[in-house]
Amino acid sequence: MKAYLDCYPCFFVQTLNTMRLITSDEQEIWKVLRAVSSFLPELSFDSTPPEIGREIYRIISDMTGVKDPYRDIKKRCTKQALSLYPNIKEKVRKAENSLLTAVKAAVAGNIIDFGAQAEFDIKKDLDRILNQDFAVSDFERFARMVKKSRKTVYLADNAGETVFDRILIEEMAVPVIYAVRDKPVINDAVTEDAVEAGIDKVAQVISSGSDAPGTIMDYCRDDFIDIFKSADLIISKGQGNYEALSEVQRPIFFLLKSKCPVIAKDIGVPEGSIILMGQKKNTGHMI
Amino acid sequence: MKAYLDCYPCFFVQTLNTMRLITSDEQEIWKVLRAVSSFLPELSFDSTPPEIGREIYRIISDMTGVKDPYRDIKKRCTKQALSLYPNIKEKVRKAENSLLTAVKAAVAGNIIDFGAQAEFDIKKDLDRILNQDFAVSDFERFARMVKKSRKTVYLADNAGETVFDRILIEEMAVPVIYAVRDKPVINDAVTEDAVEAGIDKVAQVISSGSDAPGTIMDYCRDDFIDIFKSADLIISKGQGNYEALSEVQRPIFFLLKSKCPVIAKDIGVPEGSIILMGQKKNTGHMI
Repeated sequence: MKAYLDCYPCFFVQTLNTMRLITSDEQEIWKVLRAVSSFLPELSFDSTPPEIGREIYRIISDMTGVKDPYRDIKKRCTKQALSLYPNIKEKVRKAENSLLTAVKAAVAGNIIDFGAQAEFDIKKDLDRILNQDFAVSDFERFARMVKKSRKTVYLADNAGETVFDRILIEEMAVPVIYAVRDKPVINDAVTEDAVEAGIDKVAQVISSGSDAPGTIMDYCRDDFIDIFKSADLIISKGQGNYEALSEVQRPIFFLLKSKCPVIAKDIGVPEGSIILMGQKKNTGHMI
Repeated sequence: MKAYLDCYPCFFVQTLNTMRLITSDEQEIWKVLRAVSSFLPELSFDSTPPEIGREIYRIISDMTGVKDPYRDIKKRCTKQALSLYPNIKEKVRKAENSLLTAVKAAVAGNIIDFGAQAEFDIKKDLDRILNQDFAVSDFERFARMVKKSRKTVYLADNAGETVFDRILIEEMAVPVIYAVRDKPVINDAVTEDAVEAGIDKVAQVISSGSDAPGTIMDYCRDDFIDIFKSADLIISKGQGNYEALSEVQRPIFFLLKSKCPVIAKDIGVPEGSIILMGQKKNTGHMI
């Protein structure tokens, strides 16, 4: 999905949010805002939000020397999510349709996002989403594909959300390769975050090679691309992965909450919807 | 008031909103967004929002050739406000304190703003504001100064809002000089808009000389500055005039609704508050 014009103000909001984690020095923040502002005109009109996000985080990292401004927040989110784990596991176990409840738990975890949404309440939103209907649901097809999948790739999104992904992976009970970002970008999960969430106990954790806040094929490692191409089921979590892969023709299921008006419009659902959407056949380009 | 860092994303929102009035050609909008993005790094850290707004509207005007993109909207707003005029006049007449109700009507008119707030409902907000308490009120002092004022300058804000200003001017019943923008900028009132609202029947309408969305002294005409300096009461309507004059030491009363978090924070009130605030003595510089 290419960036909409409405994404541009948001890039500045994201720059501000990240810079305020690094410093309270307004002059320093102003310098970085200026650098981001100078950089944006160089963009192609067809750039995707994660491509742009990647460049913005590179600018921030280069100018401040801070490589992982969300490190503490990521650790805290994972810890908080782990404290909710037993309770959600119990809900999944008792549910009429355990896989469906696990899918909803995984999408509920997608509220943990410092890119699209700086404020959230994991516990409150979790309960709400478990009782929310999908605005787009390809659940029956998803459930059938899970049953027969021999090679499932699960594209991680944010740290903390990883704990909720673990619950879905445990419920799917098939071999899963869990792909995380190569380097820290916003609060997206890297290997360390996946391990802290205990994903390594239930799946093989690998880096996709992408250091953008989305699995952009051009930035991925060759070994990951081979795995991606040969997977018979790909679960893509979150907005960033949707933005990166919405036009890639593979057996992808996009699992996300539409947290901003742009994504909601692109998918054709109200803001705040939860979505489990299988990639349509003949959409975009085969890789 | 210098621009806060949080103003920067909003400059892009304002650019988008204005460009969408001019064209639906996304490539053309993108070109202007890029130009605005290239321009912002040239700004001084101490620029005020109306100084920056002025430059953005200059860029839009230069690049598109459209000098007054809000012309139709301004006419429509004035017409709608005029249709509400008899009803509000009646409310003011019947009120226990007619001057206070007229002040509230004038601030209610301040909801008509395509800069800070693209969506509003004049009729609904009007009723609410007439029953809303001021978050900051120097009304008693204001009422005393109105009584003895021999030279009152009223700094206009938006077209349509002008009709509500007229109601306050009629109620004050003192000679008023009503200063509008020199050239169209956003939906700010120019002479034509003031005349359409009938202000010329109750006050002397002049141009301040400023073509920024705020009465910035550096851009004002000398004859206006003489009038401004010699006025014994200045009523400053709206956010833009507040941003331009918050540090100017004159007998100014700022009359506005705090429509964005930045202004609300600067004044120290919740967003959505209505304010009648006399300029504090020894604030900023005497002009």
